[in-house]
Amino acid sequence: MNPHISPAPEAPAASAGAAPLKLRRVAIDTYRENVAYLHRDCEVYRAEGFQALSKVEVTANGHRILATLNVTSDPRIVQCHELGLSEDAFAQMGVPPGHPASIAQAEPPASIAALHRKIDGERLGRDDFHAIVRDIAQHRYSKIELSAFVVATNRGELDREEVYFLTEAMIASGRRVDWHERLVVDKHCIGGIPGNRTSMLVVPIVAAHGLVCPKTSSRAITSPAGTADTMEVLANVELPFDRLGDIVREHRGCLAWGGTAHLSPADDILISVERPLSLDSPGQMVASILSKKIAAGSNHLVLDIPIGPTAKVRSMPDAQRLRRLFEYVAHRLGLSLDVVITDGRQPIGHGIGPVLEARDVMRVLENHPLAPQDLRQKSLRLAGRLLECDPDIRGGDGYAIARDILDSGRALEKMRALIGAQGARPFDVEHPALGALSFEVTAPRAGVVTAIDNLQIARIAQMAGAPKVQGAGVDLARKLGEPVAEGQGLYRVYAAYQSDLEFARQACLRNSGYSLGEPGEVPHVFVEF
Amino acid sequence: MNPHISPAPEAPAASAGAAPLKLRRVAIDTYRENVAYLHRDCEVYRAEGFQALSKVEVTANGHRILATLNVTSDPRIVQCHELGLSEDAFAQMGVPPGHPASIAQAEPPASIAALHRKIDGERLGRDDFHAIVRDIAQHRYSKIELSAFVVATNRGELDREEVYFLTEAMIASGRRVDWHERLVVDKHCIGGIPGNRTSMLVVPIVAAHGLVCPKTSSRAITSPAGTADTMEVLANVELPFDRLGDIVREHRGCLAWGGTAHLSPADDILISVERPLSLDSPGQMVASILSKKIAAGSNHLVLDIPIGPTAKVRSMPDAQRLRRLFEYVAHRLGLSLDVVITDGRQPIGHGIGPVLEARDVMRVLENHPLAPQDLRQKSLRLAGRLLECDPDIRGGDGYAIARDILDSGRALEKMRALIGAQGARPFDVEHPALGALSFEVTAPRAGVVTAIDNLQIARIAQMAGAPKVQGAGVDLARKLGEPVAEGQGLYRVYAAYQSDLEFARQACLRNSGYSLGEPGEVPHVFVEF
Repeated sequence: MNPHISPAPEAPAASAGAAPLKLRRVAIDTYRENVAYLHRDCEVYRAEGFQALSKVEVTANGHRILATLNVTSDPRIVQCHELGLSEDAFAQMGVPPGHPASIAQAEPPASIAALHRKIDGERLGRDDFHAIVRDIAQHRYSKIELSAFVVATNRGELDREEVYFLTEAMIASGRRVDWHERLVVDKHCIGGIPGNRTSMLVVPIVAAHGLVCPKTSSRAITSPAGTADTMEVLANVELPFDRLGDIVREHRGCLAWGGTAHLSPADDILISVERPLSLDSPGQMVASILSKKIAAGSNHLVLDIPIGPTAKVRSMPDAQRLRRLFEYVAHRLGLSLDVVITDGRQPIGHGIGPVLEARDVMRVLENHPLAPQDLRQKSLRLAGRLLECDPDIRGGDGYAIARDILDSGRALEKMRALIGAQGARPFDVEHPALGALSFEVTAPRAGVVTAIDNLQIARIAQMAGAPKVQGAGVDLARKLGEPVAEGQGLYRVYAAYQSDLEFARQACLRNSGYSLGEPGEVPHVFVEF
Repeated sequence: MNPHISPAPEAPAASAGAAPLKLRRVAIDTYRENVAYLHRDCEVYRAEGFQALSKVEVTANGHRILATLNVTSDPRIVQCHELGLSEDAFAQMGVPPGHPASIAQAEPPASIAALHRKIDGERLGRDDFHAIVRDIAQHRYSKIELSAFVVATNRGELDREEVYFLTEAMIASGRRVDWHERLVVDKHCIGGIPGNRTSMLVVPIVAAHGLVCPKTSSRAITSPAGTADTMEVLANVELPFDRLGDIVREHRGCLAWGGTAHLSPADDILISVERPLSLDSPGQMVASILSKKIAAGSNHLVLDIPIGPTAKVRSMPDAQRLRRLFEYVAHRLGLSLDVVITDGRQPIGHGIGPVLEARDVMRVLENHPLAPQDLRQKSLRLAGRLLECDPDIRGGDGYAIARDILDSGRALEKMRALIGAQGARPFDVEHPALGALSFEVTAPRAGVVTAIDNLQIARIAQMAGAPKVQGAGVDLARKLGEPVAEGQGLYRVYAAYQSDLEFARQACLRNSGYSLGEPGEVPHVFVEF
């Protein structure tokens, strides 16, 4: 029905429109949620009937963004004639301070109906996921709505077809790189194992062989160091995307932070709520990892799923279920995927924390006598798998070729080239810049190391300051199955600040992360790849 | 294992502790989420390795609160030696600005493990719900965690035993009033029907009879007016809790805003995320309503569940399922509950919006010839049901007694007493202060009104400015089943600002909320109570 609408005879002429507001940058970091600030006495605020936590649409110079409204009575934050935007939001507008801007009640994101269906437990279709992810990437979801989406799609709430739709939508939300190469390879680990810096060895080995491996990594999300944090000890990792492309074309690889590349940007926004909730469901993990890799232009991926009592995946049936989900979605998206299930019973290498891990990596590359053998072996195996996707390499020969590249120094040479191209930072493998404060944790009795708790060791390294404090972390002196005498060191904790040292010491006192016992008590692992 | 922890021989003496920060009130309203602000160059921020969206614990003068950390580089918000707190958070500390304060990484709330079990779909026990609700009431949950809880407990995710535990925990989270009366009655509607202001008639009728009815109401959550908003046209509704108690003891009733009473405070916090998500699942609705009523000291409640195509409840089986859930939880908590299922096919009364609804209520109390009969009848029926919980009144006699109280003017007299006690505001029922701007929506053709969309009429009233602009709203000229000629008025929209008027006009053009047709097309309703 189209109603007839007539002005009331007594209606006065339209009142003059309110003067436009002036845009102001409010220097508050609100972490990927756009926030707009209005003064409580602002005429527009009073007139429009905005409600608490209203979503508003801010328009300036033809650009429009959505933001959550906060109200202030402090004119030093915004004055009555101003419209404040948090740092990220202001940057998105792309106009100078003082530019005229208008604000209006935002219509709810178009995909909210689909979100509600998901909350109600329904299965969503391809268009639903594309609509939701598009709204997320355009900052149309509040943190509250993001959390609702993350919880509603957690665990068993997404079937594999839905995970495929979600992944596809996340790829479509950002840039997709085309390297114009037949083979573009990458490796990735689902995470959870401290010290597991194999990428920094696999990339130089594979690139030295000649395969293209444009590795972009995250910073630590819940761990004491991500590959980007550790690489940052050796080189600049925040490179403009065009510069990254040049490096990859010249050197066949890179080891950079992925944040500048606008690859699967919806994923970065979802992580901003998954992290504080400590949620990492299989469906979200698959969509996050595969969308980033495919957007980065990879067509062949080796995926590392560590398994162990304190790893993310704790049983072989769980690992196999996760493998099948990765394989299903990768196949639908045309990505060649090789899943390896690895030993995740303990940290890899000795050091945990950016500087300590960089030291381990460089020791392996330099064939140093103190190089951690587990890090070396695992990296060679993963690099071997990747090399075998080269049609000129026979299945089974990859490991030996990788070992030759490492032992001959060609991997070290390639790493030095990458470091130089990205912008080298001073680093001395014999005298790494560790935190000036430290303490040692020693064995209360003689025995054999029967367990090392990945989560607790990671927590101690974080409390000591990693990854923010590059030289902070944990340096393991004993690994699984090794004997130790009473009073001998198990590990040393490094920190730069006394308060961090004390936090870490308290954590060690509550739980050192080590168990000692008899040799027969060391858990076996049946994963060999 | 208790490890031996020894300081490293080379460890220097403890560095001097950082100077304490000075507390500062940051005048930003962050809506029930505590936010702490640190300057990016603050020594503590740099040293502690706080992460994005870290939860921090702020301590001053022995008080501790939890907050989410935002980081700023604007010294006008906080300087390097200051620790800023958002308005609510600052008020909770109860110390003056400049007071020394310290900040530390917060341990996650103890109940987060239970929250994760609920996210995973497990059934929680009584202790889990008490722990979660306690943490929520103590502001230990971030908005992200609150959303996660609300989504994880939505729809079928709570069984009735869990709803009971949740309700009980919400009561325990705040004040519980004891009126020292045998009978303390209340009425409540689950909401969703514009103009449904029966409380403002039921309370004076029941209180005039002598029953104690301490009615505290919410402001509008998703509607164009809550009872508190409409009552505020006539009287002050924000009263200190002690003053409320005095009024109830003297006048046997009140009509006040419940926000000052600290009744079920966890509910208010949960609503702050349920509202933007538009979530109102049966379990959350039952826990919210019953916890507030029991905390307010009521022992007999009449609950109104309207049913209709655009009401919250749309079918009789759904209404019966909701009734059983209310009854189960009420019984477990010792509350006598009388559920009535009512006609929710259209708005109640003529006016929608605070002033218009106040006019309708006063017209009914004054037995005015223009009084809306549907509002009068429904209020008399509900009041009759409540009166019958008086053991001196025979079942079936309540309605006639209520009618006598209304027709005789005793209800009006009681209402005037309540208005006077709370603090009267000027109101002239013959000349209510409506918005100066208006337009009429007329019938595009002759016919009978066959449907009025509650949601669309509410939306139009909200766009016109209600409830923030008291005189804004919608005044219905025709109700269901009434005939209308082409060009005759269906309703008039009132607004105070031109922009609001235009928003509302656009909404009416998209969908007027009215359907016209043949008399036989008016939907029947089989609810009579």
